Amino acid sequence: MNFQETLQHKIDTKTKPLGSLGILEKIAFKVGNIQQTTSPILSKPAILIFAGDHGIVNSEPVSPFSQEVTTQMVFNFLNGGAAINVFCQQHNISLKIIDAGVNYDFGKIPYLIDAKINKGTADFCIQPAMNLEDCKKAINKGKEIVTKQFTEGTNIIGFGEMGIGNTSSASLLMSAYTKTDISKCVGKGTGLNNDATRVKAAVLRKSQETHSNITNPLEILATFGGYEIAMITGAILQAKALNMTILIDGFIVTSALLAAHAIEPNVIDNCIFSHCSDEQGHTKMLQFLKADVILNIGLRLGEGTGAALAYPLVQSAVKFLNEMASFESANVTNKLS
Amino acid sequence: MNFQETLQHKIDTKTKPLGSLGILEKIAFKVGNIQQTTSPILSKPAILIFAGDHGIVNSEPVSPFSQEVTTQMVFNFLNGGAAINVFCQQHNISLKIIDAGVNYDFGKIPYLIDAKINKGTADFCIQPAMNLEDCKKAINKGKEIVTKQFTEGTNIIGFGEMGIGNTSSASLLMSAYTKTDISKCVGKGTGLNNDATRVKAAVLRKSQETHSNITNPLEILATFGGYEIAMITGAILQAKALNMTILIDGFIVTSALLAAHAIEPNVIDNCIFSHCSDEQGHTKMLQFLKADVILNIGLRLGEGTGAALAYPLVQSAVKFLNEMASFESANVTNKLS
Repeated sequence: MNFQETLQHKIDTKTKPLGSLGILEKIAFKVGNIQQTTSPILSKPAILIFAGDHGIVNSEPVSPFSQEVTTQMVFNFLNGGAAINVFCQQHNISLKIIDAGVNYDFGKIPYLIDAKINKGTADFCIQPAMNLEDCKKAINKGKEIVTKQFTEGTNIIGFGEMGIGNTSSASLLMSAYTKTDISKCVGKGTGLNNDATRVKAAVLRKSQETHSNITNPLEILATFGGYEIAMITGAILQAKALNMTILIDGFIVTSALLAAHAIEPNVIDNCIFSHCSDEQGHTKMLQFLKADVILNIGLRLGEGTGAALAYPLVQSAVKFLNEMASFESANVTNKLS
Repeated sequence: MNFQETLQHKIDTKTKPLGSLGILEKIAFKVGNIQQTTSPILSKPAILIFAGDHGIVNSEPVSPFSQEVTTQMVFNFLNGGAAINVFCQQHNISLKIIDAGVNYDFGKIPYLIDAKINKGTADFCIQPAMNLEDCKKAINKGKEIVTKQFTEGTNIIGFGEMGIGNTSSASLLMSAYTKTDISKCVGKGTGLNNDATRVKAAVLRKSQETHSNITNPLEILATFGGYEIAMITGAILQAKALNMTILIDGFIVTSALLAAHAIEPNVIDNCIFSHCSDEQGHTKMLQFLKADVILNIGLRLGEGTGAALAYPLVQSAVKFLNEMASFESANVTNKLS
């Protein structure tokens, strides 16, 4: 047997009907295959939240929340009051908060990693959100931060984001990378009603027309992305380069993955898809990436909450592979053939 | 505001877009409503596995596993080698194993709770699986065991089962309680192929014809059930009577819930549905009960594994309700109105 057959054989001879642990069996296989061992280990799980602001929200009604909420939520993360804090604490996941490009001078604050490129992006209705150089800076910062996390012993990593307006960026990135009409990429975000969602779609279509000749993956990211999204793109690329297991969160993080995937298609080999968001575009993104997801529980919060909530199930997959008895070791009679 | 409005208000004013934690918000509401507090607590979670044998497997080819596997798996549970052991250990869930009616003399064994009514049921193709008296005994034993668990401080409880042949019982119970044609209630169980599944369906249809005049809920349970299923029925009824939160597992446990529900419809108010099994009938059972499920990950293992795997998500629901900041406490600006 080659390695993959040996790994599958170990999964198949555990004391359970063949395939009866469903997706957990695929995850066990995936993590084992990433680590090239039949006894994988999840070491020092971490979630990194990247925060950034978006120029579009100052000129167009694309979000029901005002821009200052990005800053306020950064403080909420630092104070331990957000959903992601609660779930990371529950599962012993190390959480780090990164200022990728928030429109606020934090100065030196304990536990906030300063990676600010600019105080928010430009309005992509008028000009590219980032110039190419700043976008590359953001990607490299993301890589650097993941490398540091890796040296601390982390081999499984998730990413979260905070940025009022960033579902607009994610919709545009999705439309460009998956060649899907923008109307199918736009959703309610943090809670627009139907009329407001139509207005948002019209705004985004207009911005596509403004930047109609862009096809290069990096240029797409610079034009429509955000600092937090570009940093996550870099983070994903580096996590793959370091052969970590990558827990993909929801709509925004998957848009960063689409960028990473356009640059380096095999990043997908290290990704586990934590959940399918209630944000309508996410389902289609996941189809484009041929992704199996773990959770389908109507989340649309961001922050990496889906990754944190799915983590115990990834852990269960690794634990059954390592700890369950086999038919042979437990003296249980296998299925009659 | 009345209590339910106060509870919903607490959920709605956490620092997150309204409704963005999806099913977790419904679970938080449900647990709070069961405990009649906006700060519910999950205390000493427990899963009880009931094991029993089924006469049908000795005469008809309804399972690809032989009857001795029930006994072997009980030993596997006691030795900590089964999937449910691994997941309970992971989540600090207390696990107890109950001999409800296994066809084996265990004698006195540490950690095995002896509640044996008989060494397996009778073959329901020929006669009722249990007589009414034994079925009532099993129900009462289930109640007794749950009461004991309650006195140990448990307020959230799940049930699992082991019993080669018990998907046949569950299919018949489903057909009777939900008035669904047996063909839609029969599935592959632990791994029958399509031809064998058709044979199983024919066997079960024949046994329905043998017992065509039975409509009383208790008589249905006695005729087609098993000792482990009847004991779970009693356990569910008692967990409701003691106002515990009940974590419903897969196809077999839901068949026991259908029996409990036929006897006492409001048991459902205390149930959280952990997952939708890959066993085809389960989806329809859940529709019948108008159940929202947490996990949809292709499980079909039994043992209470779905309940154990969903538990951390129930815990997350309670934790966000207790631990997240509100817009007010965190000074975060809520949605523009």
